[in-house]
Amino acid sequence: MITGDVRPYLEGKKSPVKLGKDEFSFSVMCLDHGHIYGMTDALSRAGATLRYVYDSDIKKAEAFKKAFPQAVLARCEEEVLSDDKTLLIAGAAVTSRRCELGIKAMKAGKDYFTDKAPFTELSQLEEARKAIKETGRRYMVYYSERLHAESAVLAGYMIEQGKIGRVLSVNGFGPHRLSPKDRPEWFFKKKEYGGILCDIGSHQIEQYLFFAGEDDAEVVSSRVANYAHPDYPELEDYGDCMITGKNGTSNYFRVDWFTPDGLRTWGDGRTFILGTEGYIEIRKYIDIAHGNVVKDRVFLVNGKGEQCFDAEGKTGFPFFNGFLLDLINRTENAMTQEHALKAAELCLKAEASAVNIG
Amino acid sequence: MITGDVRPYLEGKKSPVKLGKDEFSFSVMCLDHGHIYGMTDALSRAGATLRYVYDSDIKKAEAFKKAFPQAVLARCEEEVLSDDKTLLIAGAAVTSRRCELGIKAMKAGKDYFTDKAPFTELSQLEEARKAIKETGRRYMVYYSERLHAESAVLAGYMIEQGKIGRVLSVNGFGPHRLSPKDRPEWFFKKKEYGGILCDIGSHQIEQYLFFAGEDDAEVVSSRVANYAHPDYPELEDYGDCMITGKNGTSNYFRVDWFTPDGLRTWGDGRTFILGTEGYIEIRKYIDIAHGNVVKDRVFLVNGKGEQCFDAEGKTGFPFFNGFLLDLINRTENAMTQEHALKAAELCLKAEASAVNIG
Repeated sequence: MITGDVRPYLEGKKSPVKLGKDEFSFSVMCLDHGHIYGMTDALSRAGATLRYVYDSDIKKAEAFKKAFPQAVLARCEEEVLSDDKTLLIAGAAVTSRRCELGIKAMKAGKDYFTDKAPFTELSQLEEARKAIKETGRRYMVYYSERLHAESAVLAGYMIEQGKIGRVLSVNGFGPHRLSPKDRPEWFFKKKEYGGILCDIGSHQIEQYLFFAGEDDAEVVSSRVANYAHPDYPELEDYGDCMITGKNGTSNYFRVDWFTPDGLRTWGDGRTFILGTEGYIEIRKYIDIAHGNVVKDRVFLVNGKGEQCFDAEGKTGFPFFNGFLLDLINRTENAMTQEHALKAAELCLKAEASAVNIG
Repeated sequence: MITGDVRPYLEGKKSPVKLGKDEFSFSVMCLDHGHIYGMTDALSRAGATLRYVYDSDIKKAEAFKKAFPQAVLARCEEEVLSDDKTLLIAGAAVTSRRCELGIKAMKAGKDYFTDKAPFTELSQLEEARKAIKETGRRYMVYYSERLHAESAVLAGYMIEQGKIGRVLSVNGFGPHRLSPKDRPEWFFKKKEYGGILCDIGSHQIEQYLFFAGEDDAEVVSSRVANYAHPDYPELEDYGDCMITGKNGTSNYFRVDWFTPDGLRTWGDGRTFILGTEGYIEIRKYIDIAHGNVVKDRVFLVNGKGEQCFDAEGKTGFPFFNGFLLDLINRTENAMTQEHALKAAELCLKAEASAVNIG
């Protein structure tokens, strides 16, 4: 393997800013999706202090407390929302209820950090925009497939440093393992999970906007299908979509629930970024058929040759500390509010206009 | 690397049928694209005898004769077309003139084998269909990225043997190196090369129809651009396209002229085939960043695990011998006439309806 050195790409990158003890506290509400564990872990490592956890299902809250013993079990929603020290509510509600929780949080004076997708309907997006304006609070989204993936972080640095020239096109594959027996009921109700392009498609669109440096774009064409899961008639097991950016960059992504049992992880997620001077391929969670499971591999091909970089353990997840600083200083360095919402808007539009081919 | 054994996939495959000396002879006309060398080589190895070569540029014909000394330099087109022993004309004319040559060949009682793309206009396709009907001759196409790639042959066998279940979706990337100084003038004239989706896109569509087992399909959306080659205003350096098959399978492909100088071959061609029970990735011409240049790699992931197969030198190119037998016996085992034309039709439609985003 022609191995590249990650270190030059990390030069000049700021170290995380250490926050004072209890300088920034957050609480957690609605534990319907397991992503809340990753969100809490990332926020805690970035310097935030976890205060309350609340879920109407006490078993969920208790299980969460086992993983994060510092959490205080709140007795009701109000106890969390009225807590002055809580500056941010993090939540992973049923997708269709994420907006409701966010508006509640913002109206209580808190910023909001939700699992993706942040909405299931365009009307929710409009309500959220209104509440953001009225309250001055943030409605931000845990787009984990970029923010919580070191290979994606490294690819971002490479693009920033001009290693592939001007970005022209981004292609993404987001296959996932279904494991239907481990999924809650809401996961198979279209109204509640929002459809595949809305749900796991949201990651793909966020990545496209980020890597291509686009702040607006248009859904050109999208498709969904239930190809092979008649027992779950409202599940979309396949979706794909073409998007054109305001600056003329192009995007296509495919998402599906067909990860085979023999794959050694949950999905062979890939991102291909084509530039004028080279291209990047990210093999996010596995480099298939390698003897060991290797994740977070970035392949860079440009005028200088072909290189493979192992990003695991190298870049960390700078988004989360930057996000906390943004909330403290009311800046938008880690991610703008508009970027988070634009990705959501496009995934809702992709879903709404999708042709059903299955 | 978790390496798979190619041999079980080759079991039961027929060996090439040895043709008698001079049982099937062909001649070559119009050497505008270098593909004619690959075509001639493949037909010769499959058992056909090369008779004449003709090009209006005698230098091209002489250069060809250096590679294939058995060829007789014809003095004019008519000498080839009136040769009773020539059963097939193989040609790689300027793309916009391929149809004209084909009709001439068929009207002279010969079958025709052209480099791809076979047409640049839908009207040519109609003329060809008419001539096929009138003459009873064949108008077949050298879709080299499948027919002349052992990894693609192996992937076809895997699908045939049900290794990934029912095929749902095919995605292809067909990047190419431009090397503009080595290209003839016609290569940059849209009327003559037909546009990127027509030209290198034709391979992609043919592969999709084949791997998905579709005999008809519809272009859903397509885009082209000249992103970065203002010196060649009629060049499309980027194109992509979404197609939906009659049976509901889905296809997307991207083609471009952005292969970076540092890639150790002309293009990192990939094909991803998603099935209900697994998926296949073909890395056709290179497995990037491996120490050695390794081509024709097929990755198979299904319920049994992840495996990498090296197809180079293993499958051969069964199309060509099968094609000769089809011509002798008037069968359609290696490829049907309709398949060859349907791929052409779809690439013309993709090109005609493409939105220019560059």
